[in-house]
Amino acid sequence: MIVKVEKEMHPSARVTLVGAGPGDPDLLTIKAVKALQSANVVMYDALVGNEILDMVPQDALKIYVGKRAGAHAYSQNTINILMVDYARKYGHVVRLKGGDSFVFGRGGEELLHVQQHDIPVEVIPGISSAFGVPAVQHIPVTHRGKSESVWVVTATTTKGKLSADIRHAARSSATVVVLMGLGKLREICDVFHEEGKSNLPVAVIQNGSTKNEKIALGTVGSIVNLVEQKEIKAPALIVLGEVVSLHKAFDTLVQEYVAVIGA
Amino acid sequence: MIVKVEKEMHPSARVTLVGAGPGDPDLLTIKAVKALQSANVVMYDALVGNEILDMVPQDALKIYVGKRAGAHAYSQNTINILMVDYARKYGHVVRLKGGDSFVFGRGGEELLHVQQHDIPVEVIPGISSAFGVPAVQHIPVTHRGKSESVWVVTATTTKGKLSADIRHAARSSATVVVLMGLGKLREICDVFHEEGKSNLPVAVIQNGSTKNEKIALGTVGSIVNLVEQKEIKAPALIVLGEVVSLHKAFDTLVQEYVAVIGA
Repeated sequence: MIVKVEKEMHPSARVTLVGAGPGDPDLLTIKAVKALQSANVVMYDALVGNEILDMVPQDALKIYVGKRAGAHAYSQNTINILMVDYARKYGHVVRLKGGDSFVFGRGGEELLHVQQHDIPVEVIPGISSAFGVPAVQHIPVTHRGKSESVWVVTATTTKGKLSADIRHAARSSATVVVLMGLGKLREICDVFHEEGKSNLPVAVIQNGSTKNEKIALGTVGSIVNLVEQKEIKAPALIVLGEVVSLHKAFDTLVQEYVAVIGA
Repeated sequence: MIVKVEKEMHPSARVTLVGAGPGDPDLLTIKAVKALQSANVVMYDALVGNEILDMVPQDALKIYVGKRAGAHAYSQNTINILMVDYARKYGHVVRLKGGDSFVFGRGGEELLHVQQHDIPVEVIPGISSAFGVPAVQHIPVTHRGKSESVWVVTATTTKGKLSADIRHAARSSATVVVLMGLGKLREICDVFHEEGKSNLPVAVIQNGSTKNEKIALGTVGSIVNLVEQKEIKAPALIVLGEVVSLHKAFDTLVQEYVAVIGA
């Protein structure tokens, strides 16, 4: 059997884990574009747009392995197995993911799986949404006098609970960026409220860096209502920290909100 | 006087704050390359290499405003003033910085200064070294079962002291990435040691993503000696967390060290 597998191995079998950045196709790196252009197979997620897929050669296989309507089309295990199978059969497999594969992207698991099968693997970092999306909105995640560090968390743990790191982060003086947290926004704000931070500025940004970008700016106390009013949906990112007050529209928007609720 | 200033204003005066990524020129984004190609003036730092500067048009002014031998060639205030002056006089100024301008890059200060002078300003995020440098070394900053969050800190505060966030981070379960921290490595390890984390894996990476890349892999207890042995110098980044043990060479290197010191 081993002999058979070796015979089947494509001479240029390899896998490249590529971060596609937050959404704007121009936020791909040169290295990512080169990888896409030399791909025989591209396995991509929901956050990767058509303009990015257009960079892939016409004769390459493009396989969608993202979520549909909240359900995984493919389990992580299936994705791992397919990466290896496709590399053996077709050559260069690009595993393309929104943001950065190694920042809550499960790229580490994919890397280990491919390595175990003795297939060469390269990692091309992408602009993480955690930093890139606030930047495009002119929110610096660190700023002298406002924040000396930045903590990137995900809202939900493997077990579906609110991550314990959220409370720890709420107690720190770091700027806190929450990825994949919109569904838990109220719980997150409750934690910050309990830590005495009801007035801490918060931004929620949907589809950052794309044409469909939307933003809500408020405070821990007001942001849940604002997000509902503005009908902000996933995929969205939450930034909690004094740095959010540096956004050009922050003062205006907070005043408008105060005027509306009469506070 | 106001009339005079208006007359002097270049019709396409604008400033773009561009992150150049960790060092590899191919880790620039397409958007960054486009900005460089349309620049009339580029103001750049020590971490930006010649291959990147070669993307700038020949007739553009290239101005080095980084540190030399530990001393600032230009103060932040001077850089701010120059950005505005050059934009008024020459048009499109690109402020080019290693990594990402908004992750310990003082980009927020530059943004606010330019905005105050009513000059259009755009921000192009770069691959932050905090995530990009570990990724190139195949170290995922988050990984199921090992780390549910990542905290990026700088070692030194504005006042030159070890940042208080370091201790807070040492108490958390986050992967901790320290930028500009090599000079304080011993102090940082002391803090983690005091928190009972002497065996926590640590990587120190110099010149990440470039040809001159060097890495030391060890633990809180061993890394200071290893960095000395390997003569690792600034610019370097420190990663502390269980995720470091995922590095391919981790087990081998730690065993070698144990063999040498006879522990």
